[in-house]
Amino acid sequence: MLWTPDQATGVRALILMGHGGGQHKQSPGIVARARRFVVEGGFAVAALDAPGHGDRPRSAEQDRIIAELRTRRQNGGELSPVVTALHNLLAGQAVPEWQAALDALQHLEHVGARPVGYWGLSMGSGLGVPFVAAEPRVRAAVLGLNGSETSTGAAAQITVPVEFLVQWDDELVPRAAGLALFDLFASAEKTLHANPGRHAEVPMFELDSALRFFTRHLH
Amino acid sequence: MLWTPDQATGVRALILMGHGGGQHKQSPGIVARARRFVVEGGFAVAALDAPGHGDRPRSAEQDRIIAELRTRRQNGGELSPVVTALHNLLAGQAVPEWQAALDALQHLEHVGARPVGYWGLSMGSGLGVPFVAAEPRVRAAVLGLNGSETSTGAAAQITVPVEFLVQWDDELVPRAAGLALFDLFASAEKTLHANPGRHAEVPMFELDSALRFFTRHLH
Repeated sequence: MLWTPDQATGVRALILMGHGGGQHKQSPGIVARARRFVVEGGFAVAALDAPGHGDRPRSAEQDRIIAELRTRRQNGGELSPVVTALHNLLAGQAVPEWQAALDALQHLEHVGARPVGYWGLSMGSGLGVPFVAAEPRVRAAVLGLNGSETSTGAAAQITVPVEFLVQWDDELVPRAAGLALFDLFASAEKTLHANPGRHAEVPMFELDSALRFFTRHLH
Repeated sequence: MLWTPDQATGVRALILMGHGGGQHKQSPGIVARARRFVVEGGFAVAALDAPGHGDRPRSAEQDRIIAELRTRRQNGGELSPVVTALHNLLAGQAVPEWQAALDALQHLEHVGARPVGYWGLSMGSGLGVPFVAAEPRVRAAVLGLNGSETSTGAAAQITVPVEFLVQWDDELVPRAAGLALFDLFASAEKTLHANPGRHAEVPMFELDSALRFFTRHLH
């Protein structure tokens, strides 16, 4: 999916959006945020279905991990290691896909090779951390709702400005793991925003903040 | 000190600013922030000298604690307990002073009894936590750069929205103590902003954020 302002002509800064686990490139949370980035920020926004999400087939291994996650949710088992296993499984495929998508997007007349940002929470951050680490065209990233178990090595390679979200009462990601991931980023400018509430309860004012963060770093 | 917009008439929301240790009501950091709250936010802003600061005489006990702080800074001793002792010493005097100042300010024609915010970091937060807890006229507070050793009981009585700042590499306040204080606030809306750097290195974009926070909650 690519969104640009009405009657867009000429190049513009681009925000890549990685959706959460079980969601897809047109999930309401993606579309609502993309709309604000485009309408209020003048950005182009692109979203991809992650491997095994949206219309894309799941591998047997992904099916197994998701079944395990469901079982543990029902039985009260520890969720974090399973979430991490899923992110690590998908990241190897997702990173080159994002890079190929970015190549293609930058050849479009109404996008072009302007600064690029990445926005992704939860699985979108689990896959985003290795992508942002690998891709020098990304100049700023909003990440969060995931922990240091995923991609520790990649996190330490990130040097661009990062705004990182932690939900203080996250039932999927231990608080200490989120804080530890923030600690790992090598960025000179990184800012942690923590708010009370469970995994899916990020307050809407954080979208205002993300919009200003990208405006500050990409425009 | 009271600052209001040029040719201010009529009532307006008020921000009370508590300065840091060793500073005073006209320190550059206070004046620069007050200016933006007034000019960009249309607020009235008031600042007081804390007990023993600015032109106010120090007590012998305060002199003793400050000498101890200086000694530990030179010799590499643990600073946090001394900072806490200073805040606790001054808070008993500062809270009723702020309340009396607020009474007087709300009788002014160009301030009036509109919503009130409190801004204070470091000692301004150490004294601000018990003040905000005690004063129902305060509807929103920006606090931070202090830890849970100060005023644990008061923190748990705060229910208004709080934006709380932590410096990730703070040499005066242990990181865990800052996070623990954030955890104590009873506010349904509280947001933690943590940034890399030492005690005095809060990035300027946090002033933009404070201005928006007060605008959201006081206007």
